[in-house]
Amino acid sequence: MCPASVPPDAKRGWIIPIGGGEKKVRSSKILGRFAGLCGGETARIAVIPTASELEDAGHRYLSVFRDLGVGRAEILPLETREDCEDWTWLAKLEDASGIFFTGGNQLRLSTTIGGTSVARLIRRKNAGGVPIAGTSAGAAFVCEHMIAFGKSGATPRSGMATLAPGLGLTNRVIVDQHFRQRDRIGRLLSALAYNPFATGFGIDEDTAAFIGPDDVVEVLGSGGLTVIDPSKLQFSSMDTARMGQAISLIGLNLHILLEGDRYDLHNKVAKAAAQADR
Amino acid sequence: MCPASVPPDAKRGWIIPIGGGEKKVRSSKILGRFAGLCGGETARIAVIPTASELEDAGHRYLSVFRDLGVGRAEILPLETREDCEDWTWLAKLEDASGIFFTGGNQLRLSTTIGGTSVARLIRRKNAGGVPIAGTSAGAAFVCEHMIAFGKSGATPRSGMATLAPGLGLTNRVIVDQHFRQRDRIGRLLSALAYNPFATGFGIDEDTAAFIGPDDVVEVLGSGGLTVIDPSKLQFSSMDTARMGQAISLIGLNLHILLEGDRYDLHNKVAKAAAQADR
Repeated sequence: MCPASVPPDAKRGWIIPIGGGEKKVRSSKILGRFAGLCGGETARIAVIPTASELEDAGHRYLSVFRDLGVGRAEILPLETREDCEDWTWLAKLEDASGIFFTGGNQLRLSTTIGGTSVARLIRRKNAGGVPIAGTSAGAAFVCEHMIAFGKSGATPRSGMATLAPGLGLTNRVIVDQHFRQRDRIGRLLSALAYNPFATGFGIDEDTAAFIGPDDVVEVLGSGGLTVIDPSKLQFSSMDTARMGQAISLIGLNLHILLEGDRYDLHNKVAKAAAQADR
Repeated sequence: MCPASVPPDAKRGWIIPIGGGEKKVRSSKILGRFAGLCGGETARIAVIPTASELEDAGHRYLSVFRDLGVGRAEILPLETREDCEDWTWLAKLEDASGIFFTGGNQLRLSTTIGGTSVARLIRRKNAGGVPIAGTSAGAAFVCEHMIAFGKSGATPRSGMATLAPGLGLTNRVIVDQHFRQRDRIGRLLSALAYNPFATGFGIDEDTAAFIGPDDVVEVLGSGGLTVIDPSKLQFSSMDTARMGQAISLIGLNLHILLEGDRYDLHNKVAKAAAQADR
């Protein structure tokens, strides 16, 4: 699914992949900023816990959003593809001013929601201005090209990352989460090596990439955002590598960004908060 | 890369994945129809042999196109990412009335062309009306979600298909080629199981799916087009399958289409040539 068309006179909503393990308390900067973008006291946030197998996956978020002063937050228990065609849930989504995907398994998201009326509606809501956030599995799912699973390690190798079609709110980035905590730079590099048209975002835990309507990204949280820009790549050996073999990649551009730093996905320019102050 | 925007008052060009092994003689229906769509005697066809490691990969097509009365056909020897930024080749592409990708290795196409000026120009040309055909590896590459490699066999299994971002002329279909010759129904089903939003096209050798500007598809050639429509899928076990484990899929719609049959990608309706005649 490619990004839905943005209607005339509308601006696309924020897209907010979170690296997992974000603080779930009233002082959480990430959830607080998301709640504010959704309208704060007048917000109506739909929490989608489909990625998780845990009964109470969404409930913790409801209580945090309540503590943050959010007007209304509600769980949409989308467990089957049939649920994703149910007008009860579609009506609640239609009314939402923000949508949040919990963590879990991103393949549960894509197999359950992919190609359903819920997927189409979420894409349309985002194109019309509604912010969509996802943490961990939810962060992977917002992308057109989603890392479904893979192996840890620093060296990119053929077959290290398995891609699957995601929800497709953006096709400009491929996201990996729990990034430095789970040593995933090799797997993100492998994902980019297939076709160096997208930018790689390695998002640490308790860290979010707030992708604005203008495709300028702001980093928020206690960890880092690793940006890998392959747009000037001169060489990749991905096409000739045997399964498991290391891949050579020449000409990548790398940035490590922290809270307050920005990255412009259009012109591929990073700016540190300290630079912006000057 | 998602499909480029079609300019106002323009119609997207035909997209023509061919299953490989097509007849390369003057009597070839597939190449003949493609040549006609490109303008016949006034056509200017650019042949891109990048997928192949063979020196003469493109030359056979030049002589067939000449036999078919094509005005001009020329090879664009795009071997490196640097070649894909070279104005010599970009100018020739800009002038082309049709573009043809040979067979070989689709990862050579995505790693060499992906994210370059050549990729952007081809997408823009197709959005503006220019037909793009690709055989074998070239057929896989025209899709947004490209099967990079995988295993043979009839039973879908986790990890059986490896997806990578392709050129992205269409995101409505995932193509597999040499389909019945190489027993690939399991791998196409695995690719669809990740996220059942796209339609699967299994294209036999010497067979092509002519995807029209209106997304109505016509089959041409001596083999079949296997269409797998997962839009009404009720259940997939892909999210819980271990690597190599068989996957259950419930509620797929399957069509086997032959020359003259049609398939409408919008409303997902197939029509046999014999039905159309009534």
